[in-house]
Amino acid sequence: MNYKSISYILGWIMKVEGVFLLLPLAVSLLYREKTWPVFLACALLSFILGTALSFKRPENTQFYAREGYVGVALGWIVMSLIGALPFYFTGEIPSFTDSLFEIISGFTTTGASILPRVEDLSHGILFWRSFSHWIGGMGVLVFVLQILPMSSGQTMHLMRAESPGPSVSKLVPRIRTTAFFLYGIYVALTVLEIVLLLLGRIPMFDAVCTAFGTAGTGGFGIRSDSIAGYSPYIQVIVTIFMMLFGTNFAFYYLIIAKKVKDAFCMEEVKAYFAIFTAATLLIAFNILSQMGNVGDSLRHAAFQVASIMTTTGFATTDFDQWPEFSRTLLVMLMFIGACAGSTGGGIKVSRILMYMKTIKKELGILIHPRSVKIVMMDGKKLDHPVVRAANIFLISYAGILVASILLLTIDNFDFTTNVTAVISALNNIGPGLSLVGPAGNFAFFSGFSKYVLMFDMLAGRLEIFPMLLLFVPYTWKK
Amino acid sequence: MNYKSISYILGWIMKVEGVFLLLPLAVSLLYREKTWPVFLACALLSFILGTALSFKRPENTQFYAREGYVGVALGWIVMSLIGALPFYFTGEIPSFTDSLFEIISGFTTTGASILPRVEDLSHGILFWRSFSHWIGGMGVLVFVLQILPMSSGQTMHLMRAESPGPSVSKLVPRIRTTAFFLYGIYVALTVLEIVLLLLGRIPMFDAVCTAFGTAGTGGFGIRSDSIAGYSPYIQVIVTIFMMLFGTNFAFYYLIIAKKVKDAFCMEEVKAYFAIFTAATLLIAFNILSQMGNVGDSLRHAAFQVASIMTTTGFATTDFDQWPEFSRTLLVMLMFIGACAGSTGGGIKVSRILMYMKTIKKELGILIHPRSVKIVMMDGKKLDHPVVRAANIFLISYAGILVASILLLTIDNFDFTTNVTAVISALNNIGPGLSLVGPAGNFAFFSGFSKYVLMFDMLAGRLEIFPMLLLFVPYTWKK
Repeated sequence: MNYKSISYILGWIMKVEGVFLLLPLAVSLLYREKTWPVFLACALLSFILGTALSFKRPENTQFYAREGYVGVALGWIVMSLIGALPFYFTGEIPSFTDSLFEIISGFTTTGASILPRVEDLSHGILFWRSFSHWIGGMGVLVFVLQILPMSSGQTMHLMRAESPGPSVSKLVPRIRTTAFFLYGIYVALTVLEIVLLLLGRIPMFDAVCTAFGTAGTGGFGIRSDSIAGYSPYIQVIVTIFMMLFGTNFAFYYLIIAKKVKDAFCMEEVKAYFAIFTAATLLIAFNILSQMGNVGDSLRHAAFQVASIMTTTGFATTDFDQWPEFSRTLLVMLMFIGACAGSTGGGIKVSRILMYMKTIKKELGILIHPRSVKIVMMDGKKLDHPVVRAANIFLISYAGILVASILLLTIDNFDFTTNVTAVISALNNIGPGLSLVGPAGNFAFFSGFSKYVLMFDMLAGRLEIFPMLLLFVPYTWKK
Repeated sequence: MNYKSISYILGWIMKVEGVFLLLPLAVSLLYREKTWPVFLACALLSFILGTALSFKRPENTQFYAREGYVGVALGWIVMSLIGALPFYFTGEIPSFTDSLFEIISGFTTTGASILPRVEDLSHGILFWRSFSHWIGGMGVLVFVLQILPMSSGQTMHLMRAESPGPSVSKLVPRIRTTAFFLYGIYVALTVLEIVLLLLGRIPMFDAVCTAFGTAGTGGFGIRSDSIAGYSPYIQVIVTIFMMLFGTNFAFYYLIIAKKVKDAFCMEEVKAYFAIFTAATLLIAFNILSQMGNVGDSLRHAAFQVASIMTTTGFATTDFDQWPEFSRTLLVMLMFIGACAGSTGGGIKVSRILMYMKTIKKELGILIHPRSVKIVMMDGKKLDHPVVRAANIFLISYAGILVASILLLTIDNFDFTTNVTAVISALNNIGPGLSLVGPAGNFAFFSGFSKYVLMFDMLAGRLEIFPMLLLFVPYTWKK
């Protein structure tokens, strides 16, 4: 293990986070809130510590997959430890465990909160919560890599460990150019959403924070009733942008590159919108008698389906009160998640497609044992390592899911709460059912359960393996 | 598809079932119950229909994996349709759907019942319920193959499709000899259990029916409180025999063959008893305050853990009232199940071991991408097709689980009921939690939900693929 390289990267992450903390500082100053010295101190601390760690470039440039995974896992943990400080030192979240839970929920774009009422928070803190979604959505390392001088091999190992989805496709030959493209699309879509939200006559602060929550598919709101209090126009805009941010960004790249036909042939994107449409119609039909009219049913169904599928976690209504069919369908959408290469979490639509194709193939082989069958995706043959990695992902994912649920039962809350809290954390959604439904929060869990859920949120965001490797003794050998 | 061969096998299954039906007829006559003509009529019907179907041996002997899977799936369905008739025509279960549910639950060794009070049933019917577990435990086709003159290739295809576990190991070179050995162990253990139960001074009828339920790891009791009303001695005997019937039968073969050291080195068997011990101790500790003393805690914990792990489903207490940790741990044991090559259901301990070994291997590869690692089991290299089949099994299993839960929600019962009912059916356990807990039953579900659960029970018993293939149009091509 090349420890020097890793601490060098951690140093850079802290420097960048120090700079990021200047934004909530500015918001705090703008609203003349007393909390601004906390942000200043945290920003300075982060920057100075980071500079100390990254002062000297390591001479040993050996950097393999192992260093990539560990660097990313530790990077996210360090980032969260520093990010929790403003919550704690402003006193707005009195417990450090709760502060850490809140910021991990923010960076991993989960959006599960331990706060019963967010209206009590200062503007600076509210902004930092929402901004953490925006930072975590695209991945802080992808950002760091833009400014950090490293070899493309190192960059690839780090980016592969941080990016969601079964395989990182380099859109253009140079990986740094790919990352630049992705960030460009991300910023452009965020700005577009802010503009459209402002047209709905909501305050600038609301527009920016809501756009951050949507862009990162996070789900922290600045009101306790999430998006329910805003006008239908705002709700529709948020629905559309949740779906846009949950789309594989390669789709936008293809459109920009004028390969419109290729873009609309992407199997994952087609399946993603097909699932959205089907689930929306089924739920709208199921909740029709509760909602009263077709328009409201469709709007609420579409919003909640988009919010859960893209793993955002905003809500316009308490879906925990819906009929069992709709509630359970939403829980299943939690597993599916958004597209690979988007800011959303979950198993990802492309993996689900891969599993379905594999089953179809294997059933064919059962009937004709000697036939040779291959699995195709977007007209290309799926390589064996990709399929195998997706299988291993599912097994590890199921293992973590089961272990976490069991650990949560020690608190002795009900089955539905435990199960959906873990599903929600591991897929980076936010709300679950029962006690952790849209009207509830995560405050009641014991400290132990909160740490289990924090692990799940990080494991979900980093797609399991970086977090698992931290527990393999072999990882730490020199 | 070789339809003639399949109907020939179906005919033989019906003939054998006709003979099996003579046993409850005898019980009925013994107790001078009015229901005996129903058993006689069903036995004759089954035998005559079977003789008509298998009158002429098919000339076309082409028989591949496809024919094996379809033969087994249809065999079990036909067997269940006939087996349901005594329930229905005696009027003791007035609805045919319920009768079919009860017998499928019996043959698949699930033990989930739609009856609120079994004490109202006649002895003949009670016997037929319990006997169906004994028939289903070892598999009716394995039995049919003993008397049916077929080539060893055909036999292998049929036996592979019916036997539980990731791979059927031929214990001895001739497969018919293997089946003979297995049945021998099965009969011997059953007789031993009956004798030991009789030593506990319970009536012969109770001893035989309880032994049938244990041997098949089924779980139908002849009392509404299952095994709770019997003495602690009886409960301990049943605990021991549930564990023995859930053990891989290859273990007994090795012992008989005087390879005792090999027997005790079987990784699956070691893991199976390790899980049993760990779960028993954890639950005993967790329920200590509810039970009052260590002895009762250990006895109830061991019984319930053995019952759930081996997928039997007997109960000595209402574990739905236990603390959340114990309840959830039992739900997890439902997934693990018993050993391959036993009469128990679930994912099977050997597959779980395989998954864990695969994850360990893959984590190693992540750290050292160029290293070559292999997965070993019992000192032998696990072949790629076996690992791949286990992965495909898990994916299909998860797919059926999710789809079934969603279909059950249409009835609008609570989340815990739906989820655990499906888990219980798919793993052939019997009870679940909430409404389908040990104190409840499955009567309240709609007919539609019952058919979904029947499919799950069959899919679980036949390890998914035979039932799935029925829905692939390609299967039915000539």
